Amino acid sequence: MALKLVIIGGGSSYTPEIIEGIIKRYDSFPVTELVLVDIKEGEEKLQIIGNLARRMIEKSSKPIQLTWTLDRKEALKNADFVSTQIRVGRLDARAKDERIPLRHGFIGQETNGAGGVLKAFRTIPVLMEIANDVHAICPDAWMINFTNPAGIVTEALLKYAAHKKIIGVCNIPYNMRHSVAEILHVAPDDVRIEFVGMNHFVFGQKVFVKGIDRIDEVLEKLIDSDGLDYSPANIVSLGWSKTFIESTRLLPNPYHQYYFQTRDVLEKDLAAYEANGTRAEVVQQLEESLFELYKDPELREKPKELEERGGAFYSDVACSLMDSIYNNKQDIQTVNIRNNGAISDLPDDAVVEINCVITKDGPKPISVGSLPLSVKGIIQQMKAFEELVIRAAMTGDYHDAYLALVMNPLMADEKRSKIVLDELLEAHKHYLPQFK
Amino acid sequence: MALKLVIIGGGSSYTPEIIEGIIKRYDSFPVTELVLVDIKEGEEKLQIIGNLARRMIEKSSKPIQLTWTLDRKEALKNADFVSTQIRVGRLDARAKDERIPLRHGFIGQETNGAGGVLKAFRTIPVLMEIANDVHAICPDAWMINFTNPAGIVTEALLKYAAHKKIIGVCNIPYNMRHSVAEILHVAPDDVRIEFVGMNHFVFGQKVFVKGIDRIDEVLEKLIDSDGLDYSPANIVSLGWSKTFIESTRLLPNPYHQYYFQTRDVLEKDLAAYEANGTRAEVVQQLEESLFELYKDPELREKPKELEERGGAFYSDVACSLMDSIYNNKQDIQTVNIRNNGAISDLPDDAVVEINCVITKDGPKPISVGSLPLSVKGIIQQMKAFEELVIRAAMTGDYHDAYLALVMNPLMADEKRSKIVLDELLEAHKHYLPQFK
Amino acid sequence: MALKLVIIGGGSSYTPEIIEGIIKRYDSFPVTELVLVDIKEGEEKLQIIGNLARRMIEKSSKPIQLTWTLDRKEALKNADFVSTQIRVGRLDARAKDERIPLRHGFIGQETNGAGGVLKAFRTIPVLMEIANDVHAICPDAWMINFTNPAGIVTEALLKYAAHKKIIGVCNIPYNMRHSVAEILHVAPDDVRIEFVGMNHFVFGQKVFVKGIDRIDEVLEKLIDSDGLDYSPANIVSLGWSKTFIESTRLLPNPYHQYYFQTRDVLEKDLAAYEANGTRAEVVQQLEESLFELYKDPELREKPKELEERGGAFYSDVACSLMDSIYNNKQDIQTVNIRNNGAISDLPDDAVVEINCVITKDGPKPISVGSLPLSVKGIIQQMKAFEELVIRAAMTGDYHDAYLALVMNPLMADEKRSKIVLDELLEAHKHYLPQFK
Amino acid sequence: MALKLVIIGGGSSYTPEIIEGIIKRYDSFPVTELVLVDIKEGEEKLQIIGNLARRMIEKSSKPIQLTWTLDRKEALKNADFVSTQIRVGRLDARAKDERIPLRHGFIGQETNGAGGVLKAFRTIPVLMEIANDVHAICPDAWMINFTNPAGIVTEALLKYAAHKKIIGVCNIPYNMRHSVAEILHVAPDDVRIEFVGMNHFVFGQKVFVKGIDRIDEVLEKLIDSDGLDYSPANIVSLGWSKTFIESTRLLPNPYHQYYFQTRDVLEKDLAAYEANGTRAEVVQQLEESLFELYKDPELREKPKELEERGGAFYSDVACSLMDSIYNNKQDIQTVNIRNNGAISDLPDDAVVEINCVITKDGPKPISVGSLPLSVKGIIQQMKAFEELVIRAAMTGDYHDAYLALVMNPLMADEKRSKIVLDELLEAHKHYLPQFK
Repeated sequence: MALKLVIIGGGSSYTPEIIEGIIKRYDSFPVTELVLVDIKEGEEKLQIIGNLARRMIEKSSKPIQLTWTLDRKEALKNADFVSTQIRVGRLDARAKDERIPLRHGFIGQETNGAGGVLKAFRTIPVLMEIANDVHAICPDAWMINFTNPAGIVTEALLKYAAHKKIIGVCNIPYNMRHSVAEILHVAPDDVRIEFVGMNHFVFGQKVFVKGIDRIDEVLEKLIDSDGLDYSPANIVSLGWSKTFIESTRLLPNPYHQYYFQTRDVLEKDLAAYEANGTRAEVVQQLEESLFELYKDPELREKPKELEERGGAFYSDVACSLMDSIYNNKQDIQTVNIRNNGAISDLPDDAVVEINCVITKDGPKPISVGSLPLSVKGIIQQMKAFEELVIRAAMTGDYHDAYLALVMNPLMADEKRSKIVLDELLEAHKHYLPQFK
Repeated sequence: MALKLVIIGGGSSYTPEIIEGIIKRYDSFPVTELVLVDIKEGEEKLQIIGNLARRMIEKSSKPIQLTWTLDRKEALKNADFVSTQIRVGRLDARAKDERIPLRHGFIGQETNGAGGVLKAFRTIPVLMEIANDVHAICPDAWMINFTNPAGIVTEALLKYAAHKKIIGVCNIPYNMRHSVAEILHVAPDDVRIEFVGMNHFVFGQKVFVKGIDRIDEVLEKLIDSDGLDYSPANIVSLGWSKTFIESTRLLPNPYHQYYFQTRDVLEKDLAAYEANGTRAEVVQQLEESLFELYKDPELREKPKELEERGGAFYSDVACSLMDSIYNNKQDIQTVNIRNNGAISDLPDDAVVEINCVITKDGPKPISVGSLPLSVKGIIQQMKAFEELVIRAAMTGDYHDAYLALVMNPLMADEKRSKIVLDELLEAHKHYLPQFK
Repeated sequence: MALKLVIIGGGSSYTPEIIEGIIKRYDSFPVTELVLVDIKEGEEKLQIIGNLARRMIEKSSKPIQLTWTLDRKEALKNADFVSTQIRVGRLDARAKDERIPLRHGFIGQETNGAGGVLKAFRTIPVLMEIANDVHAICPDAWMINFTNPAGIVTEALLKYAAHKKIIGVCNIPYNMRHSVAEILHVAPDDVRIEFVGMNHFVFGQKVFVKGIDRIDEVLEKLIDSDGLDYSPANIVSLGWSKTFIESTRLLPNPYHQYYFQTRDVLEKDLAAYEANGTRAEVVQQLEESLFELYKDPELREKPKELEERGGAFYSDVACSLMDSIYNNKQDIQTVNIRNNGAISDLPDDAVVEINCVITKDGPKPISVGSLPLSVKGIIQQMKAFEELVIRAAMTGDYHDAYLALVMNPLMADEKRSKIVLDELLEAHKHYLPQFK
Repeated sequence: MALKLVIIGGGSSYTPEIIEGIIKRYDSFPVTELVLVDIKEGEEKLQIIGNLARRMIEKSSKPIQLTWTLDRKEALKNADFVSTQIRVGRLDARAKDERIPLRHGFIGQETNGAGGVLKAFRTIPVLMEIANDVHAICPDAWMINFTNPAGIVTEALLKYAAHKKIIGVCNIPYNMRHSVAEILHVAPDDVRIEFVGMNHFVFGQKVFVKGIDRIDEVLEKLIDSDGLDYSPANIVSLGWSKTFIESTRLLPNPYHQYYFQTRDVLEKDLAAYEANGTRAEVVQQLEESLFELYKDPELREKPKELEERGGAFYSDVACSLMDSIYNNKQDIQTVNIRNNGAISDLPDDAVVEINCVITKDGPKPISVGSLPLSVKGIIQQMKAFEELVIRAAMTGDYHDAYLALVMNPLMADEKRSKIVLDELLEAHKHYLPQFK
């Protein structure tokens, strides 16, 4: 039986990881046809990745038929799964998302604050088009979106795209689970964290190890240690204070430092920026080295250097998810999906990052009821902010865009939000057709 | 490691089934200590069941230590699981619940209409006491309640008992799943029905077979056949009309006939009553024969005759549930549990009958979102009615009791509700201490 | 300043009442232009009413310019208020709505049960067209809908018509207020009943007299007397039992007897039907006599006989409402309007019958919070039923229509709902274009 | 008929204003007995105020019997209205609330940020005691709370005090209405602003003048002018940018500058602090001068200098409110009251600042439905923050207190929130018995 996977943004430096994942899972998830798709501007990278992927598959001896192409519509024909991992405007755009807010004294980050808003503005229209193509060409396919800001983008798609079989994924819950497992010296598969919240704003409120909640122990270690390191490579954690941990009794995720350690992070980021430029620029160099490695005709596996990139394990998450859908495994994974009442304090049609039972019919969220009072307000605010971002991304209305910025807790400045917005809109105008 | 199970109402005629279930599951769910508990009035039956259970266990050669006792508090010490399957007032009370409404032209039924209300009034205070004992004596134990009306009773306990580790179970979802499997010629384990609603008022809105929704096919067969027979033995189905099925596109449960075929069921029940007396009286005779069989010192297994009783498979449901909790199986089972937002249109603290992931930390409901508009109203009304029943059972207030009756869709008669209520309160007064 | 009022269904026998109301209120609500509109089939009646209205206005010496016409679009030009009081299919259709359900053993009533559903099916498309005309021709006009089932129709319009300045009115709250005033020997203007629920299913939960809640006293009298007679003329009340009143502690409205005294009402209605035919037929004769009176060229006022019709005071309600809007009076009136959270247990977009502050910007509902538990369920069910009716009226889908019928508490019979529906659809087919 | 008003905190410098209001409204709201109550520490001030009040009443010739006392319980006997205007810890405490956060780089303000939290901690227990006294001694009395933070305090009382007839008032909505009236050159009584939100965080979403919404015009003027000056005297407005106003299309209140102009306000406040010390210290001097004036035995009226204090018009608001309750006026006023669904996106039991119809039975909120998306998130967060403050004020738990601080948008810093909290708890420990 044919099983076709299409990777949109196939020229990404992360692709070798997903190739590895596909090969590794071949027995349970036997991809017969694999297509890497990219756009004209990414053709050279797509070549390099395509050739590396070919060598990896050859080495594996799995009968996976691989092709790569710039023709997305052709590629989508008969697809069973479509993964999307694109970067509209590439790392140059990210550098601007980081630099511009920072220069005005605000967090400048890829997925948070003003930078994250603009990334959403650039990304949503492109993914909307892809989702509509998927719906027209391969309506039964599941679309797995890794593209950041993954939660916002997935909500936009589920609300406005014709296609409804869309799931957002992120490596943060995966990393948190693995780090907790390490701390407790147990196997990651034995750990189930009960998550509440949204992508990049998710908290763990229980940590089950073989069904027993051991969060107290984890929080204790989080305090004692120098900071539980479950950060992706792109975020250096400053650690959390005893009081914060003992008061919330929740497991924060690395992105929370932007919201609760703003001054300190800002200071650190400004220093780093002055020393090395933006994170995007650091990554740019890393990417270049990676592609140099990838070109090596002797390389037949994912190089270890890739793990240094922040998004590591994203593809592991995606492969697990596709495997469980394909096989109706009914196991529990953490994905971004329509809330449907699972978190009572958020709208039914909000996308949340939550534990789901993964079935052939898609992920089914496991209810957690009300949010803990301690974080209810900030989570509701972030969700409303996300709604504002989506509205602005769809309307292209300047005032909507301004509202999204000024209502972000990292901005919250009526005058400077305009200044930052204007610079960002100008800087990215090529990628923001909806804003005229 | 010790694993102690206490069966409250151990003298029930159903107990051999649960004994069989325990023996069958011994490898994964190794009960080391099993105590049957009953009250003074049930001592003789308890003796008979105890001896039969002893013979069954001996035959199995499993190292299960069995005792039986009238001392509930002693029995509860160190219990890991406590199952409750009691019948306050025994079958005599049930006969009154059936007869009195019927004589006034209303459905007279064990768990529906006025009869169900009075059963709740009798049962809730007794189970409240048991739950509070459990909480005081074995606070870590899971209490598995089979006692009807199981949904209402479980909601009352979760709202008002100190103990919170309480789960209600029913055989209806189990039977529906098995019947659907039979219709589709697939294994029951491959079927997952997406249920919405409450105990004895639950609908199936999707029928997944290996993750693919095949409800259309099932509904089609439901229409063509003479009525899909997924009724428990105590309910003879009249079948459903093509129009009803095609309009709701939901899988009804056998109890729905009381609400949507009231006139016809009433006519049939009145005829049956005149011919054979109440269902309780029929069951009474069945029970007597069963106990005659049970006494046979050569009997070392659950006799086949037990399956003719309506509650068959209740214990299978309960054993599966305990097994999954004990082993943190994370499989999906349908139980009665706090809603927690899983059905958006019902209160968070309502008990619903819903698919859950069964973990060592208990069942976690899988969100289904909004109710289908077609049955939203009637489900909301039934839930509000259940709240009225619980309130009256707790306060013992006459007006509260009247409201519960008059707001039940099967009563809905301001004058006759009072007449029926007065007769029922009088008939059951020995078991209704809360009503003075 | 011009003030133009257009009365759609101007040929109605009720019109003299509204003419009287307009004349009476001329000082505060100075209508300068009044147009009576009707359809071809009602031309003769329109003539008669038009002439009577002319004589009434002449007698009053108010400078109200009166015309009557069959050209609705022309009439709507520059309208400030548009009232709608139509009867699609006239009294013949009503007779069928009453007769057909009754013959199958169900309540046969103008606005309740199957009859009410079919009336909604006939009425909604016609009023939708009118509302859309209003929106296109006189977008600033307020549309005041008296047409029954007023709540359902208003909800359909507010959900699906382009026009949003629509208010539904009914004389029941008015009558209840006046009856309560009479019982307490106080002025009606000093009474404010706190209503909860929907049109024809509204309860009074508090009775304020000059700001002091005197419901206990009213309920007491309701029990002692032979039934507080706040029924419109078309409903003969059977009175309420002490237990019902003491348990709900709510003021029922006359239509509640259909739901809580079904058997007795049915018996009475069947007897009346056998004796005198349907209520519609009784009304038909009454109407004929009225029109005979109206023709009298000496008649220059609303004849007393009109008050015997059930809808009396409807127009008083409507005139008060228009007066308060026009003058931004900010007084409190009870109308049918979008819920907007005023009753927490019903959807925001549901139409409820509720106390509102009447401003030039329309009625603003006064919050009452949660429904009393005693009637929460039945009100939620009735609201969901209304949603089903509206859906079916809009889609013209047979299954939707069946669901509306079978989910009405007065039907609730899967087989007979189909029989009744089929007969009604056939009987009314001329007025149900949406059902093919 | 007797009408007794008790003013708790009668020694406040604001009292002459309320005395003036009582005298002015004597014809409609004829207070026969007026008692000023204060605590031992305020005895001297109470003397001064008492004497001034006596002279004012004498001058008015109204038969109001005035006394002053330190015996609160005695004073409460037979009270019809009780107003509360206390300052636990007096201006010294306020100075600390302002100074300590400021020194760590956070907004230091009486009712916002960390200062407001600590003010709530000090105030809630004292008012809880008063409310419970009211309930025990004069259970029918209305308690009108002016004490800040008025919304939070009122919510705490409505949730936890036995007494339920409690209304919170603030002069901000009053001032906004008057300023808007001035801008539009209309009478304040003709203006009705539709408010959404909470005390000190309320927005105007419509501005009705005689029932016509003129918000667009007001917003336009707000932009063009140098800032609509509807600030109380204690807040100097920085004005709002065109973009902010055009994007939100809402009327902000002066306190919003703390949230959307944080950096600029902080800079300004730090400069002011260095120049003149805290606002509390400025006020202290103002108060001293006021009391010097008050002592003048020739003074028989409220001196004009009082209007320079920020709280001006508070008492006008309170007098209007009591007048409308007493006379069941059913007019519209803006007060702090239980939400009850009026704002759909906030809990029913939250206290909101909203337009109400004022009846003898208390204020009835007028529904506004959903919050505008633009401010939904921040309002929900502020409400959840308020819940955290109330919880901490009631439990006296350190971690709860920390959560309240760290979840306030003006703090949001995990390390510095602890430092600020510790200093504040130490500084106020005398007034925080609940925190050990």
